This record gives sequence, structure tokens and C-alpha cells, in this order.
Amino acid sequence: MNILFIGDIVGKPGRYALQQHLSTLKDQYKADLTIINGENAAHGKGLTKKLYNQFIEWGADAVTLGNHAWDKREIFDFIDDANRLIRPGNYPEGTPGKGLQFIKAKQKNVAVINLMGRTFMNPLDDPFQVIDSLIDEAKKKTNLIFVDFHAEATSEKQAMGWYLDGKVSTVVGTHTHIQTSDERILTQGTGYITDVGMTGAYDSILGMEKESIIRKFKTGLPARFEVPETERTVLSGVTVSIDEKTGKTKSIKRILINADHINFN
Amino acid sequence: MNILFIGDIVGKPGRYALQQHLSTLKDQYKADLTIINGENAAHGKGLTKKLYNQFIEWGADAVTLGNHAWDKREIFDFIDDANRLIRPGNYPEGTPGKGLQFIKAKQKNVAVINLMGRTFMNPLDDPFQVIDSLIDEAKKKTNLIFVDFHAEATSEKQAMGWYLDGKVSTVVGTHTHIQTSDERILTQGTGYITDVGMTGAYDSILGMEKESIIRKFKTGLPARFEVPETERTVLSGVTVSIDEKTGKTKSIKRILINADHINFN
Amino acid sequence: MNILFIGDIVGKPGRYALQQHLSTLKDQYKADLTIINGENAAHGKGLTKKLYNQFIEWGADAVTLGNHAWDKREIFDFIDDANRLIRPGNYPEGTPGKGLQFIKAKQKNVAVINLMGRTFMNPLDDPFQVIDSLIDEAKKKTNLIFVDFHAEATSEKQAMGWYLDGKVSTVVGTHTHIQTSDERILTQGTGYITDVGMTGAYDSILGMEKESIIRKFKTGLPARFEVPETERTVLSGVTVSIDEKTGKTKSIKRILINADHINFN
Amino acid sequence: MNILFIGDIVGKPGRYALQQHLSTLKDQYKADLTIINGENAAHGKGLTKKLYNQFIEWGADAVTLGNHAWDKREIFDFIDDANRLIRPGNYPEGTPGKGLQFIKAKQKNVAVINLMGRTFMNPLDDPFQVIDSLIDEAKKKTNLIFVDFHAEATSEKQAMGWYLDGKVSTVVGTHTHIQTSDERILTQGTGYITDVGMTGAYDSILGMEKESIIRKFKTGLPARFEVPETERTVLSGVTVSIDEKTGKTKSIKRILINADHINFN
Ligand SMILES: [Fe+2]
Ligand SMILES: [Fe+2]
Ligand SMILES: [Fe+2]
Ligand SMILES: [Fe+2]
Ligand SMILES: [Fe+2]
Ligand SMILES: [Fe+2]
Ligand SMILES: [Fe+2]
Ligand SMILES: [Fe+2]
Repeated sequence: MNILFIGDIVGKPGRYALQQHLSTLKDQYKADLTIINGENAAHGKGLTKKLYNQFIEWGADAVTLGNHAWDKREIFDFIDDANRLIRPGNYPEGTPGKGLQFIKAKQKNVAVINLMGRTFMNPLDDPFQVIDSLIDEAKKKTNLIFVDFHAEATSEKQAMGWYLDGKVSTVVGTHTHIQTSDERILTQGTGYITDVGMTGAYDSILGMEKESIIRKFKTGLPARFEVPETERTVLSGVTVSIDEKTGKTKSIKRILINADHINFN
Repeated sequence: MNILFIGDIVGKPGRYALQQHLSTLKDQYKADLTIINGENAAHGKGLTKKLYNQFIEWGADAVTLGNHAWDKREIFDFIDDANRLIRPGNYPEGTPGKGLQFIKAKQKNVAVINLMGRTFMNPLDDPFQVIDSLIDEAKKKTNLIFVDFHAEATSEKQAMGWYLDGKVSTVVGTHTHIQTSDERILTQGTGYITDVGMTGAYDSILGMEKESIIRKFKTGLPARFEVPETERTVLSGVTVSIDEKTGKTKSIKRILINADHINFN
Repeated sequence: MNILFIGDIVGKPGRYALQQHLSTLKDQYKADLTIINGENAAHGKGLTKKLYNQFIEWGADAVTLGNHAWDKREIFDFIDDANRLIRPGNYPEGTPGKGLQFIKAKQKNVAVINLMGRTFMNPLDDPFQVIDSLIDEAKKKTNLIFVDFHAEATSEKQAMGWYLDGKVSTVVGTHTHIQTSDERILTQGTGYITDVGMTGAYDSILGMEKESIIRKFKTGLPARFEVPETERTVLSGVTVSIDEKTGKTKSIKRILINADHINFN
Repeated sequence: MNILFIGDIVGKPGRYALQQHLSTLKDQYKADLTIINGENAAHGKGLTKKLYNQFIEWGADAVTLGNHAWDKREIFDFIDDANRLIRPGNYPEGTPGKGLQFIKAKQKNVAVINLMGRTFMNPLDDPFQVIDSLIDEAKKKTNLIFVDFHAEATSEKQAMGWYLDGKVSTVVGTHTHIQTSDERILTQGTGYITDVGMTGAYDSILGMEKESIIRKFKTGLPARFEVPETERTVLSGVTVSIDEKTGKTKSIKRILINADHINFN
């Protein structure tokens, strides 16, 4: 089972890069399942129904989210009907949407989980407690479990990776928008990368226009951040190959496509 | 001018990996100048005089620091005499040590600067203001300026990179202990990577024993973090080639040596 | 039912002030139940068995804690046997100790609850979720419920106060170590104060020696904080009178005893 | 010299309470100088020119600000011409407005200073460094120096109080919106209170509607905070009497006017 995961799509340049490369990447890696993180799809903040549908149409099988999940208010109108959309599972009980969805691939169920960290982020339910019960739920149907852990601190992400080693197929980090080069298979067989990185404007700061962010750091004054108009993009992803019997990851590869790197083969 | 930079040496496994690989790497990349980040050298926290001297003896020309600079109290005894040691330059005036040192390489001065971010970290003087005056100081002697920006947030690090683009030779990030794969030359010629990553125990969390860190996340209770005893290490670095006329970076390459990657050539 | 609550006892000066004033205060306010916050009793950080026993001997009926609960490791040895000791109830399941204890007063059970905030503090389970189930547990035995909400942010404390209005007898805040002057009875009958304040050295910063704390703010360098030796103290408390039928607070008064204020009558 | 200071005016209920009580309070305390904190005057966030002028017209001699200074964009249009308006002095050089204004009272200059803390707040220049130079500037004209230290952490506020003890006339804290009861004269003659408290809706959370804030704590979802419509208000202030020869504070009194307290005489 090959899973292709594409990191946070940021606004129009991100959607452009995704559309441009997605079918090639799916072919290249013989993807049986394609997941993208869509928390920044709509102008850098949130996701609309239109964009969610577009991602599915373009070939995504599942869309994960993060702290920006709720930035476009219309998410509350469609999240409960969107059975390929996964929001962080450690929002408190009663939150619209789900933190785990079973997605079919090769006639099998794959449990796709989204979870958020708490270090340097807003308080939520403990992701380490929540993942235990989500895994219990998943295991009833499948041993193919893919976790997008949306978190800021490298310590919390590595801790989650090691905590889940041997319990899930793969843990990929998102949220920092910068790809890390530490993809590996942990000692008990779980595929891991600290951050997949983002998909969007290349000459940017985390996908947003750099001038206003630099000004904010220099002045401390409030600023509006915009997605730049550009066709110079970066696409960041990862592809894993999972043993369908054991649920373990057999290989993990980084994907990085920009003006300086074409890191796939 | 080739500069070799090795990321945060964490405790004994980090020192072991450094000693094992340093001379090979210097040869391989024809390093004219070698810089290492030593903030975690002594049991994961701080730097002793003995270790500083050892790094110089092993072939480092300069040692940078970070938020852990002061964890071993003896640093206050030797920092003012250590002319190859650079602490974050945005500690307030009157702080022992220096944030910029000129190091000779190929009969030229290279300005080596250390600076700390503020996002998700303790308050310090504004690194964006401080770097302006450190660059002024550096420019009086050289156009070869190398900055180790020790910071947590990817936004602040990218902002610093773009802010310094065209003003310094190279900006490398440290502190998150996980190497990023975004090494590049920015549009005005400054070499950049968000984080070089650390050098230390491979099956660890940021170089420290993983069990106690996971327990801390799970329980919220105080915990003691130790450096593990292991010979399974990771070494993380970067090498840049700088045009001595213009001070611009001509090439930047990541170095990553562990059981899963041997990323150098 | 009159309850006397004394805020965070900080080190020796705090214990001294408590010993000096406790029996007078109990007489003065005809206290049926006396609760003190003991998280800083041992040199400003944590609580020992000896001090816990001393507090009971001096006349405390219950001792609450906070983020410093675990600073003296011996707490783990006696917390499970200490049936008048209450630690924050929103540590995860499996944490030693209890977040609710029933304490007898006037032949009735009073539920004493300790809870921690999350804003500007380390992540814990959601206090708003946890309090709901602690109240359910309490209500099985009593309608006399006293909550010590140990939190930093005034917003979170006021939010908890209003959230619990009409559901518990009294909510007192602790942790900022500075008494607030907003004691009142909320509209549904719950007594409330944002922070009771601390008991300890008066010419201090939060009970600790001021010089080293100022130096830390000025230099950013690591510092050791000590409890000062002094007999010039402040004692901070609150007394409430609760209607035993309805469980509502009939009156709430601040107590503040220092060189500038003797605020009780 | 009597100075009357009124804490953060929050929206319409705050303006209403101010208008209702200001002239009485000025009479009552024979105020020679009246200062109000206006950072939340416009719907809870920021200050407009109209409201600034209104405050002056109602009898304020100076208006201080805080982290919300810039929330209404029009502030940038009038701040440089508003010579009774003081923004936090530790924004970086080049920031519009001033952190110190000399205001005439009884034919004398009073230096009114506004400053922001950094603990649990966004990074700014070090307030402990900046205050040193603002005091130097003030001392050239006067020994009557009044500081509004807008900060979150009680530790930072007490540290600033003690740091300035004997160097300025008075240090009042603002920002937490809850009045503290620790007003006093420090050992070298500086008047001090950790927080003056806010002026606005009484049955609220920090002056804002309580329901949406509680919901935000309970759900973690984005929320819009509104100022409630109410005539049930709280007014929080402090009045100091300063010796014009020595610049020292001779007395400091809290003012608190709400349905439960009428704390002035
Ligand atoms: Fe994102
Ligand atoms: Fe995110
Ligand atoms: Fe480090
Ligand atoms: Fe660091
Ligand atoms: Fe405390
Ligand atoms: Fe505390
Ligand atoms: Fe305010
Ligand atoms: Fe504020």
C-alpha cells in the first residue's frame, strides 16, 4: 500500500502547485491513497467547501487539517458531511467533524488520523491520551493507520513519533511549513518525519508574503499577511510504502519540488 | 572560501560523532573554516572550558552557542578570554562574551555571528535591530559574514533569512535539533537553511533519552532529562562555498550522517 | 458554614506568618473549615510531609496545591495517604493524589477541589471539562463545594468563576501571589475572587528575594531564586460564609495583613 | 500634587462609567492631574481620535495605552499630533507616537510614561533598559514621574516596581483588567500597585461578554468577543499624592466603584 501525503497547501500558489504535480506524483509513486493537508488552502487560512471538493476532484482521497481548520466559518456547514475530511482529533467532545476517518484503498480500510500538539500552541485535549483511544477505534477495522500530527515543537513531534512506534503505520508532522530531512523508519517499524513542509509560494515566509512578516518582526505593530501572487512554488510531500499484512512502513521518501530541488525519482 | 558548520553537539554521543567524522568532513569539503554549535556539549546543557578547548583541538575554528550558553556556570569564567567562542549577540549590553568574533581563514577575516530568536523563547533584545549593528561592525573588516540564528519558530528564521538576504554571506538556523531540507541560495545571494539539526544520539528526542521526555508529555510531572549512552549517532551539518570577492554564497549543501542517511559526497 | 482560605504559603516567612495569625483568624471569623494553599511551602517550591503535617497541626483542615505540587520529590511518597491534601484535579488519570477531597465540618461534607488553568501555563487536561465531572462526584455527597482555581490569566479565572456560578459555593483564584480586590458574589450565588494572594515575605517579588529576580529580568541570564529571611510578612486570605441549605455564598471578605494594610475586622 | 489614574476604559460601558464619575472623583481627590488608560476604549480594542478628544474634554489630562494601542488603524493618523497621548515606550525606534510626554499640572511638568512588559506578551524592547533612558530624559525637566506599566505577569510588574523604587514617583500596573489590593509605598518612596483594574461592564470577563469567552475556553474554536450593552459598570482607579519637592509618593489609595464596592472616601 503506497500512500502519498502532500503538506499544507497555502493559498492559490499552493493549489496551483498541487494541480500541476498531483497526477504525475500519483503515477510516479503508484499511490493507492493520497492525503493532503488543507488547513491553509483558502488564502492561507482555512478551507472552503469548494476547495475541499476540488482537492477530491483532483485526486486527493483524504484532506487533513490543523489549527487553521476553523478560519473559514463555512467549515461548520460542511464538515459533518465531508467523509474524507479529518480535523484534529483532540478538540473536545462535541466538536464538529471527526479526528479519524476510514478511507478505502485497495479494498482495505486505512485509518487517517489528524492530531494537534500543545507545546507553543493553544490548549487542547492531550494528544497522547486521545491517540490511544483513536488507535483502539482504528484497530477494530484495520492495522493501516496514518497519523498527521500537526504541531510546532520538534520535541513534541519526535515524542509522538517514538510513542507511536510500532502502534501505527506512519506519523508525519505538519504545521511548521518547512520540510525536515529526518524521514526514517523507527525501530519498531513506524515511518516518521518531523515535518512534511508546505506547498505554496517559494519566495515567501511559510507561504505568505515576506515583506509584511519581516515588518511585523521589526516593528511589533499589527500586520495583515497575504498570500503572494506567484508561479514560483514549492511542493512538499512524502510517500510511504506500507506492508499490508503487518501495517509497518517499508519505505519512506521525501518529495520536494522547487527551483532548487527536484527531490523525487 | 569553504565553511563547514556542524549543528548542536549534544553530550557525549555528539562529541563522539564529531570526533569520529570531523577531519574526514574537513578534507572532503576542503573546509577553510569550521564552526560548531556547542550549546549542548556538556551533558546536553551548556559548555565547559575543557570541551571548548577540545573542540578547537579537534579542528573547530569557532564555537557558537544559544539559549543553553549559560547552563554550566563556569562559562562565566572563561567566555571573555575565549576568542573563538560566540554567544548570542542580542543579550543586553554588559553580558559577558561577544556576539561577533572575527576568525581568520585564508588570511581573511570571517565575521562569525550568533543571534537568538524571541518567538516561543525568552525575551531578549530584538535580533533584527542587533544584527543591523553587528553587520555594520563586521563590514568595517570583511564582507564574509556567517550568521548562526538560534531560534525556535520557522517564521522568525525565514524572516531573518530574507531580511539578511544580500547583506550577509550565509544564515544557518539552529536550536530545533532537526535538520530541515530547505537549504538554498536566496535571491540576493545569501545562503540559507532553516535548521542545521543536531549532532548526538540518533534514537533519541533532540539528543536526549526518549523515555523520560515521553513520560513528561504523558504525565505533566517534572522529569530529569539525560543524554543516552549510545554509539548510534547522527551528525548534522552544512557546508557553504562563499565567493570571497562578493561575499555571496555560491553553493550550500546539507550534511547528514546516521544509520539511515549518508548525505554527503 | 464559614470557610477560611489562606493563599500560597511561601517558604519560612510564609509559615511564620501563618503560625502567627492562624488561630486568631479562625477565632475572628468563626471558621468551621480552614484551607491553605501549600504549593510553595518548602523554600518556595513544593511541600514536604513534615510541613503538611505541621499545617494540619496548626489548624488547617485541608491543603491545596498547584503547579509547584511536585517540586519536592517526597510528595510522591505521601500524597496518596494524605486525605486532606488536594492536588490540581486536571492532571491526567493515573496521577498520584486526588483533585477532590471531602472534608468534614459541622458534621457535613465539604468538597474541596483544586484545579489548574492552562493559559500561559503548561498543558493539562481541560479544567472546564474536568470540573464538570468533579462537581458530579461532589454533588452525590454535598452541595458545599469550594474550588481553588490555580491559574495565571485573569481571563481564564473570571471565565471559570462565571462558568461555575450557581454550580459551586465558592471559587477562589491562586497562583499570581498578588491579592485582587474583586471579591464578590456572582449573580447566581457563587462567591468569587480572582486571586487570594500569597503569604510570605512582604518586601519581595511573589515571596522570593527581589534582587535576583530583577537581575534575571535585566540580564536574561539564569538565576537562582531564594526565599528571603525576614519577619516583615504579608498574609493573604479570604473568608466566606456559605448557606448550608443552598450551598450558596452569603458573604465573602478579603483578609490582608501586612505593614500597610490590616484588612480584617 | 494629586494624580488620579483610571484603568483601562473598555468600550461603551467603560466610557459611560468614566463620564458618570470623573468630575466627582476629580473633586473628591482634588486631582491636579488626571490620567486614563485608553487602549480598550473603542469597542474593547484600540482608540479613535474622537474618543481621545472626548476623554480630554471630559477632564483627562493624559491618555496612556498598551498592547491594543494599534487596533484601530486611525491611531497612526493622529498619534504624532496628540501631545497628551502616550504609547508604550519600548516599541522600537521609529514607532509613531511617544512613550513619555510632559504634562503640565500646577505649573510643573509631570513626566507620564507608558511601558509594556514582555512576559506572556509579544516581544518588544527591554522595558528595564528603556525605562532607564526615559527616566534620564524626564529628570532633565522634573522629578515628578508617573509610570503606567502595562504587563501581564505579576512577577514582572513587582520587579519593575522595586527596580524603580526611589527613581520615579509612582508605578501603576495595567492590562490584567482586575484590580489588585496591594497598593503601597515601597521602601524608597515610590507608590506602587500591581494592577489598577479596568473600567467597563461589571458582569463580564475583563470587560467583554462572558458567554463567548467561556465558549472559547470550552471549545478551543475561534470566537468573536463583544463589549456587552449594560449600565452595570465597574470603575477602577487609583489616586496618589506626591511630594513636589522630593517627587516621592506620600499616599496611594485604590478607587473601586461597582455594585459591590464603593471604595473611595
Ligand atoms: Fe499550515
Ligand atoms: Fe498549522
Ligand atoms: Fe541546541
Ligand atoms: Fe537551543
Ligand atoms: Fe504559588
Ligand atoms: Fe503556582
Ligand atoms: Fe486593557
Ligand atoms: Fe492590554
